[in-house]
Amino acid sequence: MPYEVGASAPLSPADLARITDDLRPPPLFCPIDSAINPAARRVERRAIAWIDEAGFCADPRERAWVIATRSADFYARFAPHAGEDPLLSAVLWVYWGFAFDDARCDAGHFSSHLAAFVPMAARVQRALERPCPSEADDAYAQALHDVAARFRRTAAPVQFQRFVSAHRAWLAGVSWQIANQEAGVMPGLEDYLTMRLHSAGGEPTFAMLEIANGLEVPAAEMDSPVLRALTEMAIATAALDNDRHSLAKELSRRQADQNIYTVLLSRHTGSLAEAVHAAACLRDRILCRFLRLREATLPRLSSAARCYVDGLAHGIRGNAEWGLRVPRYLSRGSVPGEAGETPITWAERPLDDTPLSLPAVAWWWDRAL
Amino acid sequence: MPYEVGASAPLSPADLARITDDLRPPPLFCPIDSAINPAARRVERRAIAWIDEAGFCADPRERAWVIATRSADFYARFAPHAGEDPLLSAVLWVYWGFAFDDARCDAGHFSSHLAAFVPMAARVQRALERPCPSEADDAYAQALHDVAARFRRTAAPVQFQRFVSAHRAWLAGVSWQIANQEAGVMPGLEDYLTMRLHSAGGEPTFAMLEIANGLEVPAAEMDSPVLRALTEMAIATAALDNDRHSLAKELSRRQADQNIYTVLLSRHTGSLAEAVHAAACLRDRILCRFLRLREATLPRLSSAARCYVDGLAHGIRGNAEWGLRVPRYLSRGSVPGEAGETPITWAERPLDDTPLSLPAVAWWWDRAL
Repeated sequence: MPYEVGASAPLSPADLARITDDLRPPPLFCPIDSAINPAARRVERRAIAWIDEAGFCADPRERAWVIATRSADFYARFAPHAGEDPLLSAVLWVYWGFAFDDARCDAGHFSSHLAAFVPMAARVQRALERPCPSEADDAYAQALHDVAARFRRTAAPVQFQRFVSAHRAWLAGVSWQIANQEAGVMPGLEDYLTMRLHSAGGEPTFAMLEIANGLEVPAAEMDSPVLRALTEMAIATAALDNDRHSLAKELSRRQADQNIYTVLLSRHTGSLAEAVHAAACLRDRILCRFLRLREATLPRLSSAARCYVDGLAHGIRGNAEWGLRVPRYLSRGSVPGEAGETPITWAERPLDDTPLSLPAVAWWWDRAL
Repeated sequence: MPYEVGASAPLSPADLARITDDLRPPPLFCPIDSAINPAARRVERRAIAWIDEAGFCADPRERAWVIATRSADFYARFAPHAGEDPLLSAVLWVYWGFAFDDARCDAGHFSSHLAAFVPMAARVQRALERPCPSEADDAYAQALHDVAARFRRTAAPVQFQRFVSAHRAWLAGVSWQIANQEAGVMPGLEDYLTMRLHSAGGEPTFAMLEIANGLEVPAAEMDSPVLRALTEMAIATAALDNDRHSLAKELSRRQADQNIYTVLLSRHTGSLAEAVHAAACLRDRILCRFLRLREATLPRLSSAARCYVDGLAHGIRGNAEWGLRVPRYLSRGSVPGEAGETPITWAERPLDDTPLSLPAVAWWWDRAL
C-alpha cells in the first residue's frame, strides 16, 4: 500500500498498527559489541538534578520528555570506559541538545521560521564560545554556557575547539532542514545525506568522545581523510538508524517531515515498505564500509585515535540499542512511558555491501584512505 | 547633519560630496609595518587567467569588478614572505570569495532569500569538503572545488580542515546577515560584532595564512584562548576597517545595509559624523588590545605560531592599505576605475584604548590570556 506523504489527519490507532505491521522493518545489522558505562544510573540522577536547576524546560510535560530521552543511557553507551565526571558533562550536553532540538529545531516557532532561527542559533553558539556569561542569554543559552564551562574545566583547548566547530556545523545543518521546511522542499537523496551529516547532531555528539574519555587525538590523525571518513560514516549510520527509530512516531503523528523515507518516496515510485527496505540497504552499505575501513585503519593509529575510533563504533551500537528502547521513540501518548524491555533481534548479515556513487559521499570508498 | 538611514533615492553627487566631506573620517591608526609579497603582480596575472577559465563571472562587467577587487594585492600583503604557488592558491580563493560575496551574499536573489541561500551555501560548502567533483555543481561550487583541490595538494590535512571549518563559519555569519536583511532587523552592537566576526569572511582569509606560508601551527597553540582572541581581534579590526572603506560607496548607493554606522545610528541618537567617530574609537580599542597582547604573547610561541600571529598583523595592515586604494571601494561608476595612488596619512595615536565590556568580546581583555 503506497503511503501518502503529507496527509493531514492523524492516523487512527488501527490504521497505524496495520501500516506498521505492513512495514516489517528488517532487524538491524550491527556486529559491534554492546557496552555501557557502569556509572550510567548515577550520572542520570545527577543530570536530572542539573536539568531542574538549569530551568530550560518550559513545563513539567517538557521536563518529562527531556528525561525520557534517557540521554545518560545513550552516552554511557558511547563512552563505556569514561570517568563519571567527564561522562556527566557530555551527558548534560546530550540532554540539552535533545531539549533544544525538540523545542526549537524540530517543532515550535523557530522550526518553521528560518529568519528567526538563524540569529537565535548564532547567539546560542556564541554563548558556547565566549567564557563570559551574559545577562541577555535566554535559558537555553545559559544552560549551554554552563555546559561549556564544565568542558573548559575538564578538556584541553583543542578538544573544546573541536566541539565548538562541530556544534556550529550542527546548527548550520538544522538551518538547512528549516529552510527546506519553510520553503516546502523535500530534498533529494544526496542533499539529504549531506544535510543529515550535520543536522542529526552527530558531529558534536562524537566530538565529545575525546572530552568524556579524557584523550586528545593528535590533529594530524583527527583531521586525516580516513578519520574524517570514519566519523562521517558513523554519523550517517546513526542518523539513518534514528530515522528508522522515529518512523512509527512520525507516522502516528502523520508528520511528513524530512527523513530518509519521505526523501526516497518523493523521488521514486514505490511503497513505503519498499522505501524502508531501500533505506536499510543504504544504511548497511555505509556501516559495512565503516567496519572494514576501521579494521584496516586501527593498527596504524595512536592509542588516543584508536580510542576515538572505538568510540565511533560504540556510538553506532549504543545509538541503535538506545533508539530501539527509548520512550522518546516508543511512547505514543502525551506523556512518555517506560523504556522498552524486550530483547532485540539483530540481523546476521547486511542487506547490501556495495559502494555508494553519490559524489557527496563516494570518497568514503576511496582506496587511498 | 543627522543622516537618514533607509532613504530610498540615490544621493546626488553634490550631496554625496558634501556628506563625505562632513564626515572627515579620522586617519587610521595602524602601527604595523607595510609589506607586500614580491610575486604579487605575477600572481595577479595567473589568477586572472584562472578566473577566465573557471567561468563563474556572469558577464564582462562582473569580471571587471572581480578583477577590481585586486585580491592578489590584498593577499600578497597578508603573506609577504609566501612562495608564489601557495600564495596563488590563497589568492584564487580571495577572488572567488569576493565574487561569491557580491553575487550571492551582499546583492542578488540569494542576499534577501534566506531559505534559498542556506541550502545553496551548504552545497557550496560540501563542494569544498568532498574530494569528488560533481556534475550537479554550479559554476561557483566548481571553482571552489578546484581551489580546494589545490589546497589539498599543498596543505596538510590539519590546515585544510581548519580552512573548511572557517569557511563554514563564514557562511553561517552570512546567513545571519541575510536573516536580518530579510526580516528588516538592524542588529544591536553586540550582535553585530558577533555576526561580523563570521560574516566578514575573516576566518577563512586568516585560515589561509598557514597554507600560504607553508607552516603548520601546533593544535595546542592554534586552539589556545590567546590565539583565538588574537585571531578574533584581527578579524574585528579588519571588518570595522572594511565598513569604513565601503561607507562612501554605500552612501552613494544610499544602501541602508548593516554596517557599524547604521548599527550605531539605529540605537543611539547622534549624527553620522558622531557614529563615524564612535566606530573609529571602537576599532582602535580592539587594535590596541591586539597589539599589546601580541607583543606579550610572541616570545612564548613556536616559530610557526609566531609566523601566524605576524600574519594576523600583516593582514590588519594590508587590509587597511588595500581598502584605502582598491577600486572596489573607490570607484563610483558602473565600471571600476584605477586603484588609488595618493599617499596614505596614518594617525599617530589611537582615539581610545580602553577595554570593551560587551560579554561577547570582553574576554579578549582577560588578564589570564
